[in-house]
Amino acid sequence: MTSGLPEDAGVHHLRVRYAETDQMGVAHHSSYVPWIEEARTEWMRARGRSYREMEDQGLALTVVRLDIRYRESARYDEVIRIRTWMDVQHRASVTLAYRLFRVDSPEAASEQVLAEAETRLALLGRDGSLLRIPDDLFGSGV
Amino acid sequence: MTSGLPEDAGVHHLRVRYAETDQMGVAHHSSYVPWIEEARTEWMRARGRSYREMEDQGLALTVVRLDIRYRESARYDEVIRIRTWMDVQHRASVTLAYRLFRVDSPEAASEQVLAEAETRLALLGRDGSLLRIPDDLFGSGV
Amino acid sequence: MTSGLPEDAGVHHLRVRYAETDQMGVAHHSSYVPWIEEARTEWMRARGRSYREMEDQGLALTVVRLDIRYRESARYDEVIRIRTWMDVQHRASVTLAYRLFRVDSPEAASEQVLAEAETRLALLGRDGSLLRIPDDLFGSGV
Amino acid sequence: MTSGLPEDAGVHHLRVRYAETDQMGVAHHSSYVPWIEEARTEWMRARGRSYREMEDQGLALTVVRLDIRYRESARYDEVIRIRTWMDVQHRASVTLAYRLFRVDSPEAASEQVLAEAETRLALLGRDGSLLRIPDDLFGSGV
Repeated sequence: MTSGLPEDAGVHHLRVRYAETDQMGVAHHSSYVPWIEEARTEWMRARGRSYREMEDQGLALTVVRLDIRYRESARYDEVIRIRTWMDVQHRASVTLAYRLFRVDSPEAASEQVLAEAETRLALLGRDGSLLRIPDDLFGSGV
Repeated sequence: MTSGLPEDAGVHHLRVRYAETDQMGVAHHSSYVPWIEEARTEWMRARGRSYREMEDQGLALTVVRLDIRYRESARYDEVIRIRTWMDVQHRASVTLAYRLFRVDSPEAASEQVLAEAETRLALLGRDGSLLRIPDDLFGSGV
Repeated sequence: MTSGLPEDAGVHHLRVRYAETDQMGVAHHSSYVPWIEEARTEWMRARGRSYREMEDQGLALTVVRLDIRYRESARYDEVIRIRTWMDVQHRASVTLAYRLFRVDSPEAASEQVLAEAETRLALLGRDGSLLRIPDDLFGSGV
Repeated sequence: MTSGLPEDAGVHHLRVRYAETDQMGVAHHSSYVPWIEEARTEWMRARGRSYREMEDQGLALTVVRLDIRYRESARYDEVIRIRTWMDVQHRASVTLAYRLFRVDSPEAASEQVLAEAETRLALLGRDGSLLRIPDDLFGSGV
């Protein structure tokens, strides 16, 4: 079901909000962007890193590329599972990958792919300068 | 049609975005909040005040109360006219009032009421302290 | 701490998303509107009513009034607790009330008030006609 | 300045809303998605096609891929210019391309690139079935 995903991929669940639907009767495609961001925050937390603390320390991750392929529509009130993992670590940026599924509940084993996505992130210092990505930026794994 | 509104009320137009609709087929009620905020910015600009410059100078307006009465639904792609005016100036806050209409075009005389709203705003200094509202905060009128 | 709230008030928790902040460094005041809506959905679910099923059966709740008083700012990544209860049942509408708090975790006893809100809701049939509110619209309590 | 763009690219302007900023002090990366959608609607309108009417006739365009590369940050109250054009017409989908610029005003000749984007769109019938893209889907040009 989740074949091909790294073993240490993070898992996060959320429900589609009514405000996130559009008049086509499904979640608007822009709604996925905050979902992915929330999944990234939780993936970091699970690895022992708080993005809030990172920002307090003067480091900011900025999205330089966003790529989403939509397979199936998400609907109001459905439970969405998002699996997150590090795809590629470049010298001055890092690409995280995400797979979004519809599930019956957070405990359900069965899942249906809704979308695949990547975000390429750059690390900025307090003055907005581009920093090299340290090896332990996202902690040492769960 | 606009009886009862002050003569110096500001006028702003915008179109309902697709992303602002929900699965009921109308603009979601949360969409009105950024519309009202946009109308306020443009009302200030028309009076010679830039909210962006105000913030650069260390002054921030923060919403302490929001009240919206919804009369009719707004729909995708409709042109919305928002009339904005100062309702009450208190010592430490100011209440702006808004009336939202559906119109055929920005030039149309005929208009249909969609909603009425008020926002009560407080003025904050750079350190977050509450400031007294100066008489000329919003300029001297159009 | 929660003195004055009805005993059967519902409780829901969520975290402030990064996308919900603004350049003042706090959650934008429009972000509270989908939070309140999510709290209402969960309050109904806890009482045995699914809003999704209600819509599938041709009934829709539409917000005719929204009123929010903001006390303190919510910040990124904070856990927000929302208590929801039925305030007034009118003949053709119902007013739900909400109190929003900042808490350290969903289990925390200590809580700090962020905002108070009410939404007045009307019940619409499939043809958009206004329906009388049935006594058991929101189930029989937890 | 706009070298490389097709001559019949559409042009649309909007201003960054306060609600679209985040605590990094710039427009949140999710804000670009509704902007691009608004630009597409206006590009169609300029070519004599109303997306609202298209939907009323039972045809819907659904985004199957979204790809955005962010070059520079957009800031509150800045005027954004979006150039839109048809990039590739496939048999069962069409890819539109967008370039986003910061400009001093809608009339300004000088412009600074903020982002580049593509959306791949599929055409759905009333029953959700995939339709072949007709040659004149987007009208015959300006």
